[in-house]
Amino acid sequence: MQPNKIREHLRKFTRLPHLAGTEQNLRYAEQIRDEWLEFGLDSVEMVPYDVLLSYPNKSQPNYISIVDQLGNEVFNSSLAEPVPEGYEDTSNIVPPYSAFSAKGQPEVHTCTTGSILQVSKGIFVFTCVKSVKHNLCARVQPYPAGWNLPGGGAQRGNVLNLNGAGDPLTPGYPAKDYTYRFSLEDGVGLPKIPVHPIGFHDAIHLNMGGQIPPNNWKGALNVSYRIGPGFTDDFKSQKVRMNINTDNKVTRIYNVIGRIRGALEPGWRPRRTIVFASWDAEEFGLLGSTEWAEDNAKLLQERAVAYINADSAIEGMYTLRVDCTPSLHTLVYDLTKQITSPEEGEEGVSLYESWHKRDNWTNDRDAPRISKLGSGSDFEAYFIRLGIAAGRARYTKNKKTERYSSYPVYHSVYETFEIVEKFYDPTFKRLQAVAQVRGGLIFLLADSQLLPLDADQYADSLRKYAHSITQLAQTHPEEMKVYEVSFDSLFSAVENFTVAARDFHERLQTLNRVRVMNDQLMYLERAFIDPLGLPGRPFYRHVIFAPSSHNKYAGMSFPGIYDALFDIEHSADPQKAWEEVKRQISIAAFTVNAAAMTLTPPA
Amino acid sequence: MQPNKIREHLRKFTRLPHLAGTEQNLRYAEQIRDEWLEFGLDSVEMVPYDVLLSYPNKSQPNYISIVDQLGNEVFNSSLAEPVPEGYEDTSNIVPPYSAFSAKGQPEVHTCTTGSILQVSKGIFVFTCVKSVKHNLCARVQPYPAGWNLPGGGAQRGNVLNLNGAGDPLTPGYPAKDYTYRFSLEDGVGLPKIPVHPIGFHDAIHLNMGGQIPPNNWKGALNVSYRIGPGFTDDFKSQKVRMNINTDNKVTRIYNVIGRIRGALEPGWRPRRTIVFASWDAEEFGLLGSTEWAEDNAKLLQERAVAYINADSAIEGMYTLRVDCTPSLHTLVYDLTKQITSPEEGEEGVSLYESWHKRDNWTNDRDAPRISKLGSGSDFEAYFIRLGIAAGRARYTKNKKTERYSSYPVYHSVYETFEIVEKFYDPTFKRLQAVAQVRGGLIFLLADSQLLPLDADQYADSLRKYAHSITQLAQTHPEEMKVYEVSFDSLFSAVENFTVAARDFHERLQTLNRVRVMNDQLMYLERAFIDPLGLPGRPFYRHVIFAPSSHNKYAGMSFPGIYDALFDIEHSADPQKAWEEVKRQISIAAFTVNAAAMTLTPPA
Repeated sequence: MQPNKIREHLRKFTRLPHLAGTEQNLRYAEQIRDEWLEFGLDSVEMVPYDVLLSYPNKSQPNYISIVDQLGNEVFNSSLAEPVPEGYEDTSNIVPPYSAFSAKGQPEVHTCTTGSILQVSKGIFVFTCVKSVKHNLCARVQPYPAGWNLPGGGAQRGNVLNLNGAGDPLTPGYPAKDYTYRFSLEDGVGLPKIPVHPIGFHDAIHLNMGGQIPPNNWKGALNVSYRIGPGFTDDFKSQKVRMNINTDNKVTRIYNVIGRIRGALEPGWRPRRTIVFASWDAEEFGLLGSTEWAEDNAKLLQERAVAYINADSAIEGMYTLRVDCTPSLHTLVYDLTKQITSPEEGEEGVSLYESWHKRDNWTNDRDAPRISKLGSGSDFEAYFIRLGIAAGRARYTKNKKTERYSSYPVYHSVYETFEIVEKFYDPTFKRLQAVAQVRGGLIFLLADSQLLPLDADQYADSLRKYAHSITQLAQTHPEEMKVYEVSFDSLFSAVENFTVAARDFHERLQTLNRVRVMNDQLMYLERAFIDPLGLPGRPFYRHVIFAPSSHNKYAGMSFPGIYDALFDIEHSADPQKAWEEVKRQISIAAFTVNAAAMTLTPPA
Repeated sequence: MQPNKIREHLRKFTRLPHLAGTEQNLRYAEQIRDEWLEFGLDSVEMVPYDVLLSYPNKSQPNYISIVDQLGNEVFNSSLAEPVPEGYEDTSNIVPPYSAFSAKGQPEVHTCTTGSILQVSKGIFVFTCVKSVKHNLCARVQPYPAGWNLPGGGAQRGNVLNLNGAGDPLTPGYPAKDYTYRFSLEDGVGLPKIPVHPIGFHDAIHLNMGGQIPPNNWKGALNVSYRIGPGFTDDFKSQKVRMNINTDNKVTRIYNVIGRIRGALEPGWRPRRTIVFASWDAEEFGLLGSTEWAEDNAKLLQERAVAYINADSAIEGMYTLRVDCTPSLHTLVYDLTKQITSPEEGEEGVSLYESWHKRDNWTNDRDAPRISKLGSGSDFEAYFIRLGIAAGRARYTKNKKTERYSSYPVYHSVYETFEIVEKFYDPTFKRLQAVAQVRGGLIFLLADSQLLPLDADQYADSLRKYAHSITQLAQTHPEEMKVYEVSFDSLFSAVENFTVAARDFHERLQTLNRVRVMNDQLMYLERAFIDPLGLPGRPFYRHVIFAPSSHNKYAGMSFPGIYDALFDIEHSADPQKAWEEVKRQISIAAFTVNAAAMTLTPPA
């Protein structure tokens, strides 16, 4: 893996806009296919699905206007972002929009600016100025002078609430030509209200009045932050009108799927088959990856060992970030000790040491921090629906000082090849290190005789998660007594799992039944799947890891219990709410016990 | 296998009443455990669950009374059946009752006698005189002179509507000590109305008036059959009052689970482990078998090759009856050619020939008829929920002339050891033949190097099922055009499966990768499971075989399509109903295509 090759590939695939479902995206998919064949993969195919996508209407652009008492539009938001240098002649740049927004021209009386996309009763909210919220970030110059977001930039994204369903019209099944499609009314997760993103240069024109927001909603602009409703007194006769004409459209997308077949044949091959996948339409709701998971669910459940995700490889300049299932912890540590730090002045220092120094997992162990897998990227269907061991790696920022999500120019027109070359990784060595981590994980998972998965680590993590969720419940000590809520069954199950894992790894030392024990390791993650899914979310089936309904990106463990505890404070019927907590504890205990059974010797 | 041993075991286990949840049933379970250990099984354990059962109230018996206009009870139905000879001193015979009936003393104005248990709007119906309905049966003397049902006999059974959920209070999870239990109000499938069975000696006192029933509802009694509402004119001031005091109660049940471990060790062992299971509480809704399936679902899905059911072994004196998954057809034919006919005068004739002669599968092939697996016995959770290849065998009646279900004394006090010894199988050779079929299937499934499962047979059956369900749809040719309903995708999927199955069996001839191909065979049945379940029935997940919602015991193939077609005639919105047909065709096509993929060589 050479930095200059990485640079070359990044340059090539970022030169032209390639929104899912467009001609250019198909061209890139074909290019990936051709290159993979050239690299020597055994087979590469394009796998199409016809999924619901969403595009702005070219002849009726989306915008937000301020309307005076006579109904005149006295201000309109920008129709596009100012294009950065070097891209003046680039056509087909899609303007900022919220994919799958409802259409409409509502006049809205309340606006709320905030750092998060938040939908209040029947009205609307739009994102803005997220990137200038924190001081460190505000001291950084806007692109192109620095890596911060200019005031004309805005974040694209989708506003679906899919809960893992994939294509909104074919939940649970792959969107093939013969697949039955629900109508738009019956589709999954489509919002009923218009949504639109604007930049902060537009947002300051709103002159919002009303309450002062909580401090953590305030940004670093030199304005007095207000959350509405309505405008300041000087402008109180004004209204805001949204003009949203985005169209939903069933559109063909193309995954590219390549294979290196595993076998003991002349010439090197991995022991196990490696499948490479270039997923289409990730930004539209993980559609390409989810449809292919639905299409191949039976084979994957029977045969898949692990899934390594490759989404953005760099979001900061500080150190490595790994999110993975606990059974991969040991492998990640072992591997990163073999890789060199990409940081200047750290010649001869391992990536592990460099990472450890910058992000010690102090509240857990003296080792680099590894996070739980959350959601929002293509591993979702593989990990949370099918129960395949999964992990991801990227280079990241210093979370202690840079407390914005992803990176300032995320999903704006300023997210360019040049911002990587100029600011994030001029030597391309950080990206090389990330590639070595991802590639090393794949190589070792595919080629080790004994699968490098660690059930003991899963046991340790389960115990910690059980303690965390118990502590959360214990913030209600009196109700726990009244409603007789006990976590004993869960801790007993974790203990059973711990013993089974220890015995399993002891048998590994002495027994020589690699195939049988590899099967058990392969199925360990699958054992945490509840076929009934989480309450109301049939496609989120992992009992340990799934997004909580209420904090989508937290990746809280034991999501069923967590959600039930969350509802305690929002339920009109506390007894019923606590009954649900008890039910979820019982399901978690059963699932962990059942997972322990899968590690026992075949009877 | 010796007839006298079979006789001895049947005598032993039928001597005393042993309702699930009672002391005597636990004694029998312990006896099974002890005998299995004595027979040499490697391990035997009692596996308890605490499930909802239902018993008559001993101090307030259930009965139905006729009430005159003054409110006096002028007739009460019998509290028990007249006990047959030889059982006069037997205590603890539970009187006829409908387990899980609602409690109550409703006065009911409408009664309907019929051959089936049928619930009309808000009222009630009771079973009666089922056994005398058909002429052949009516010519047979009531027990003890013959094998027919006496007028004092009535059929016990449960009136749950579980759809595969197992214990009504713990749907989806095993009923262990720590398992969360729903309240009775939230339990699955519990009826809201009182139900009670009476014999025809009581039923004739009802003097029912009203309409004459359809002919196939009429029995062979010398009365004028009427379906109500109300009584004949002479008795029109009378009413019927039900007095139902049956109690639901969470009760401990015990499965007995024995194992012969599979291994290539000194001394004969099967290649694969055999698990023997004695299921508790079958009559209360398949509770023992379903809870154990829930408890062991993950292991069973990963490792189970096949499930052979052993419910009643004889229901007639005519010939063999086999119901099984299509992949077992070939094995059943091969095996029965090795077994001798138990029929007198057929010395030297194979069971296959004897069976073929009596029940030729003329509309399918020149071979003995094999039926689809239906529901209502302990294979349900293994086959329809988990997707494990399954079969059952018993001796049966001549269906052409004896058109009642099961056998006349079914679930009455007259279902005795003596009725078998005197009428059904005096030499115990028929039971021996059944034991040889069941045992032979288990032996060959456990000990053959290559699993004796036939994917080609599954392909053939799928094609026939697809034709049948298409024909059903084509009874609505115009709507099929209007709503653009096509079965092409299903036939195309069946064709894909057929090719994959043929290729698979061809590879079996030449390749020598037994372990890999046995895995593929093992997972073939699993491939027909849709994790989302059938509409509204999350525990019935087999896309090819499941009870239709509307014809519970038919075992119609493609139940999703079948149910959708049934709804066509009962829906106020035909367009919506036909959309559901199309959706179900698409799901069936996808599932068959996915099953075909599992037979392709591992990539």
